[in-house]
Amino acid sequence: MTAMQDTSTAGADRIIISVDAMGGDRGPAAVVAGISLSAKKNPDIGFILHGPKAELERLVARKKPLLGRVEIRDAADVVTMEDKPSQVMRHGKNTSMWSALDSVRSKEADVCVSCGNTGALMALSMIRLRKLPGVNRPAIAILWPSSNPQGFNVMLDVGADIRADERDLLQYAMMGASYARNGLDLETPRIGLLNVGTEEHKGRAELKLAHELIAKQAPLAGYEFVGFVEGGDIPGNTCDVIVTDGFTGNIALKTGEGTASLIGSLLREAFKFSPLSRLASVLAYTSLQRLAKRIDPRRVNGGVFLGLNGTVVKSHGSADAMGVAAAVKLAFQLSQSGFSHKLAARVASATEQVQNAVEERSQSGDKE
Amino acid sequence: MTAMQDTSTAGADRIIISVDAMGGDRGPAAVVAGISLSAKKNPDIGFILHGPKAELERLVARKKPLLGRVEIRDAADVVTMEDKPSQVMRHGKNTSMWSALDSVRSKEADVCVSCGNTGALMALSMIRLRKLPGVNRPAIAILWPSSNPQGFNVMLDVGADIRADERDLLQYAMMGASYARNGLDLETPRIGLLNVGTEEHKGRAELKLAHELIAKQAPLAGYEFVGFVEGGDIPGNTCDVIVTDGFTGNIALKTGEGTASLIGSLLREAFKFSPLSRLASVLAYTSLQRLAKRIDPRRVNGGVFLGLNGTVVKSHGSADAMGVAAAVKLAFQLSQSGFSHKLAARVASATEQVQNAVEERSQSGDKE
Repeated sequence: MTAMQDTSTAGADRIIISVDAMGGDRGPAAVVAGISLSAKKNPDIGFILHGPKAELERLVARKKPLLGRVEIRDAADVVTMEDKPSQVMRHGKNTSMWSALDSVRSKEADVCVSCGNTGALMALSMIRLRKLPGVNRPAIAILWPSSNPQGFNVMLDVGADIRADERDLLQYAMMGASYARNGLDLETPRIGLLNVGTEEHKGRAELKLAHELIAKQAPLAGYEFVGFVEGGDIPGNTCDVIVTDGFTGNIALKTGEGTASLIGSLLREAFKFSPLSRLASVLAYTSLQRLAKRIDPRRVNGGVFLGLNGTVVKSHGSADAMGVAAAVKLAFQLSQSGFSHKLAARVASATEQVQNAVEERSQSGDKE
Repeated sequence: MTAMQDTSTAGADRIIISVDAMGGDRGPAAVVAGISLSAKKNPDIGFILHGPKAELERLVARKKPLLGRVEIRDAADVVTMEDKPSQVMRHGKNTSMWSALDSVRSKEADVCVSCGNTGALMALSMIRLRKLPGVNRPAIAILWPSSNPQGFNVMLDVGADIRADERDLLQYAMMGASYARNGLDLETPRIGLLNVGTEEHKGRAELKLAHELIAKQAPLAGYEFVGFVEGGDIPGNTCDVIVTDGFTGNIALKTGEGTASLIGSLLREAFKFSPLSRLASVLAYTSLQRLAKRIDPRRVNGGVFLGLNGTVVKSHGSADAMGVAAAVKLAFQLSQSGFSHKLAARVASATEQVQNAVEERSQSGDKE
């Protein structure tokens, strides 16, 4: 599809990130500004940037930190937020999103970053990168501000697939553990399975089965299983990784974001109430900034698609330069740690064990 | 079970609320303090109070506002937070919870308030009050702080039952609309059906069917149907009533609570950071109090069990006097508006129509 001969300008020993310049709400200027911020902070990143060549060359030329750090791959078409995944799969060959994924497919980069349409990105990722052997449903993992020492929890799936059976949930546990290990530097991540109560007899049938499978796999997979957790544990410190199906995860994610945004606007309202409260807000400014920084979605930008041959970081559609830079930082960290390969190895070695465990279970005719 | 001869002391023209004094984390003293607050503010409430007679008499005697406003029903046993619903159903006849529900069963009160074990309260409510004719699954509805003019949205089910098919979801829509009409004074409540996207083709099969049923019923049931809504709309102003199954609703509720509590503690931390920020927090005190008041869970205390012969208000287990008073206020408002009877009438008239609609649909062989 796209010319791939020349990667020299992207840098020799640098870690190369493939970036879709198009499809975000703020256009390619925000993406180029974002990768420029990243390039300035981190001399070890190089970029392959995908989109309309003339426009990108003009934008990149204006940013000094990007000099000699970016290779541009021409792609005339753009996936819009309104495009349906099925259409993009059929007619999307000339889009920047397709091209960005193909740089991962061809092993020029380990990780791809895009601010585009999530549904289309997941659909294209599935056909261009293919699922890892042994993975039934890929998942989208996000970082959630929490009271944990690391400041974040991982939650998955938040919307790749609205269904998940017990084996999918086990794979999410393993993939989430691997992500927490490489993305958050947690040696032995604590896994929680999201449910409506913490008692083992509660919840849906697939959750009880998943509880059993995830517990059994813990010693081999190098995580600690804390059992069922509740919605309140998502921003809490009972566990580091919250495992759930994509329907529930998506609702929880958006409820949390909505609640945070409601509190933010109520807070602004409260400070506008009287002259004294306005004065207080001026004095409180730095405190509030500190809080905003802690929970600023731009600083934790990036859902990560797991379970594919390669890793895709999905940035918010509305990401500004700082948001894009946060997504690139995450992509860099994952790429540097060799995350994609470690995850693949772990899933491969676990698949057989799980198969055995499931067969053992069904042979024993265990029907509690 | 319990002596019911004498209701004279609870007051003649007053609206009588049946209150379970036991089972809350703070014991009967908090409950008695709560109903005393309510009695002081509202001369039109009388109480039937259930629990160990001697203890309650001592507590009530200390509160002047309760003079001549409370009838005590002796119940020796208490349902603890650890008791399993099935045990309570078998052996709970002498508990204050059972006795409190029986005052609704015998029509002495329209509404019962309890801070006890939710699972046990729902199980006992089902066997003592019975489901309304035509209701398959009762639901728990809560009020959620929102950016709506009324300051709250209704969400149901938040945990009565982890399953709900399309007919259950339709009933939740009707019951939620009735609750919003009588509890929030909204003449034509806007109903939203919780999903992972707002496009009509998205989500689980039962959600697509429910979308159709709820839309069809709108003109008859007196609500406006806004279609699918997302997690972010729960604290938003796209709709007044959010309809979902008890699994998803419970996760969303607890995620929202957890997020609010995380932000609260981060805010406190931020203000403790430096002498200047501590000074700012003193000046900001009234602003923050205004905010806290707006989202204080004690002021919106009370999940409401809908779909039974009578209404049950479940207060937080950790409710203090103010929390109990908030639950009593809600119980009073619902009782005064004749909510239980209006809801029953509406469900009865709708049941037949729905039955017809569902049959029509299956006869037309409509299978998109």
